[in-house]
This record gives sequence, structure tokens and C-alpha cells, in this order.
Amino acid sequence: MYIINIKDCEEKAVKSERTLNTTLRWLLSSEHGVPNFEMRCFDIKKEGRTRYGSHPHEHEVLVLEGKGVLNINGEKKKIKPYDAIYIAPDEYHQFINEGEDTLRIICLIPKGKEDHHK
Amino acid sequence: MYIINIKDCEEKAVKSERTLNTTLRWLLSSEHGVPNFEMRCFDIKKEGRTRYGSHPHEHEVLVLEGKGVLNINGEKKKIKPYDAIYIAPDEYHQFINEGEDTLRIICLIPKGKEDHHK
Repeated sequence: MYIINIKDCEEKAVKSERTLNTTLRWLLSSEHGVPNFEMRCFDIKKEGRTRYGSHPHEHEVLVLEGKGVLNINGEKKKIKPYDAIYIAPDEYHQFINEGEDTLRIICLIPKGKEDHHK
Repeated sequence: MYIINIKDCEEKAVKSERTLNTTLRWLLSSEHGVPNFEMRCFDIKKEGRTRYGSHPHEHEVLVLEGKGVLNINGEKKKIKPYDAIYIAPDEYHQFINEGEDTLRIICLIPKGKEDHHK
């Protein structure tokens, strides 16, 4: 068993090109021995957004706080707390904060698929 | 892409023996096309608890609301909102609500491992 609170997990700026005002915390990852999938928390701060792009692995997301928009394959969809979102492999996607406060989401991926962000 | 808010997802009582006052929502599951892992929401209501037991697959949990205890291999650990918890395969575990309000958690599993709860 491993337990960590979001506030105690190291917060790193996402250094991907075209990602703005966004930080990442690896809550449960290969470093903690997980066998199959990894849980991260993204804080997309005021005027922040993730990059618009796609990849061959899926995302499973839960919105925790804030308000914003999911740009999914070019279509914009409003998102709010406790929205659970499945983004299928190869779908283009981008999260955009449209509020005054942080848009906080958790995002799960198959293990090892985004180690370049570690 | 598939999106659902927790409040709009069907809430079912967990009918497992030794589980008390607990409901389950399948937020993102095989029915929605997910390829690898499934996201559920458990509401462990006042005086509720999940069964104490183990299985060969892991859990990845995020506490959303409420307060309670995780009984992990016989040791009791207090849990609170935004605690992320990895429960490894074959670890004995039980969530116990110790507050006045609902203890709400999300719990992810490898796809297909708990279809008996569907």
C-alpha cells in the first residue's frame, strides 16, 4: 500500500511546447510499483491549457475543481467538477481553463506511456 | 469520447455480503469502450463499510469527500479528501466511513476484474 495526498506530491511545471500555466503531479506511478496504470493530477491554472494533440493510448479523466473546456477532435465541450471523461486512443484533445480558479483534473494512462513527462 | 457526471450515472447498491450502506457507479467501463482499466465511484454512506478481503488485482483510489479509515492488512489508516491510494494485488483492504457524511471515493481496476458487481 502506498498513500499520498495531492498537496504533498511534488508539483512540476509541464514543459511541453504549447502547454501553458499547467503543472503535473505523479500521484501513483511505476515508481510506487503500480502494475498497469498511472494516476496523475494536472492543475491547469488561470489562462492555462494543455497542448492540442493525440497519441495511441487512452486517457481516463475526472474533473475535480474549476471550469473549462475540452477541445475534442476540434469540438469544444464544457466540463465541470465530477465529470468523468474517456478519451479514446488517437483522439485529439486539449483541456482549456476558462475560469478564474485552477482547473484541476486527475488523468490516468496505461503505465509507461508518458514517461517523457517525468 | 464519452463523458458523464457522477450525479448522472446510475447508482446501485453493492450487494456483496459484509458490505454495508455502500453504492457503486460505473463511470468509465468496458460498456464505454475503455481498453485497459475501469473507473468507478463508491459512496460509503454513514455507518457504511466495504467488505474486508483481497483479490489478485490492484486498486487505485482517490478519496473525494468525507472521512474514514482504510483497514489495510489489519492496520487502520485514516484517510481524507485528495488522498491517492495504491492497494497492491492480494493486499487485504476495507474502507470504513467514520464520519457523519458520505465517504466518496473513486476506485480504478484493470478492465473486467469486477464484472460480478455490474
